Amino acid sequence: MIKINHIAIVVSDLEEAQNFWVQALGMPLQRVEQVESEAVKVAFLAAGEAEIELLQPTNEESGVARYLQKRGGGLHHVCLEVADITATLERLRAYEIELNNEMPRYNEQGRQYAFIHPRSTGGVLVELYQTNR
Amino acid sequence: MIKINHIAIVVSDLEEAQNFWVQALGMPLQRVEQVESEAVKVAFLAAGEAEIELLQPTNEESGVARYLQKRGGGLHHVCLEVADITATLERLRAYEIELNNEMPRYNEQGRQYAFIHPRSTGGVLVELYQTNR
Repeated sequence: MIKINHIAIVVSDLEEAQNFWVQALGMPLQRVEQVESEAVKVAFLAAGEAEIELLQPTNEESGVARYLQKRGGGLHHVCLEVADITATLERLRAYEIELNNEMPRYNEQGRQYAFIHPRSTGGVLVELYQTNR
Repeated sequence: MIKINHIAIVVSDLEEAQNFWVQALGMPLQRVEQVESEAVKVAFLAAGEAEIELLQPTNEESGVARYLQKRGGGLHHVCLEVADITATLERLRAYEIELNNEMPRYNEQGRQYAFIHPRSTGGVLVELYQTNR
């Protein structure tokens, strides 16, 4: 059963973005983290079983930074939870879906994730995330 | 407690989009509806407590059609469930957030919804939706 794990929004300024999402709208801020490997500072907002992640690039070269320069702030990707990411990637390959990551990568919590290229999804950057190891 | 109700994705062809989301990825297709008032055909995919909606414009003048012409397919908006939409809109106005709908509108099921302008959200079109009448 596939669920939305999070949706990620690129922002130019995390404090300013919280004025809308946290102060005005009233979404609970869970935590703010620096993710060195992606060169982003991330604010996590609770949204039921999912989260909204606000991403602020911390340098000018990362994928997120280039996205911001090119398209401005806005919806960046959707992350879907899957039970078995290896099986899902295999299935996607059988359908000739283009993957950014042929093999799952591991995040800092040891969870596996992989991105699917927007060319194969009609323009949406999709992240897959396996909640069980 | 604010939850994600759905995320909406604009597509140029609903059948083709289902090749990725339903056939390859395996998300369950719940139903396909024609929403005359918005001039879209919508496929609803189950995603845990939320849904993913694929929107195909059915004319060339609607907001969704113009979005597709201008930016191509991709993430269009996020819809958040709120307990009291009138109170939420009042609070947003107090924070000088720009609303597309000053008063809630009613959808075909009699549920109230309203859109927040991307100018006030850092570039994200946000829909609010009240699940209780």
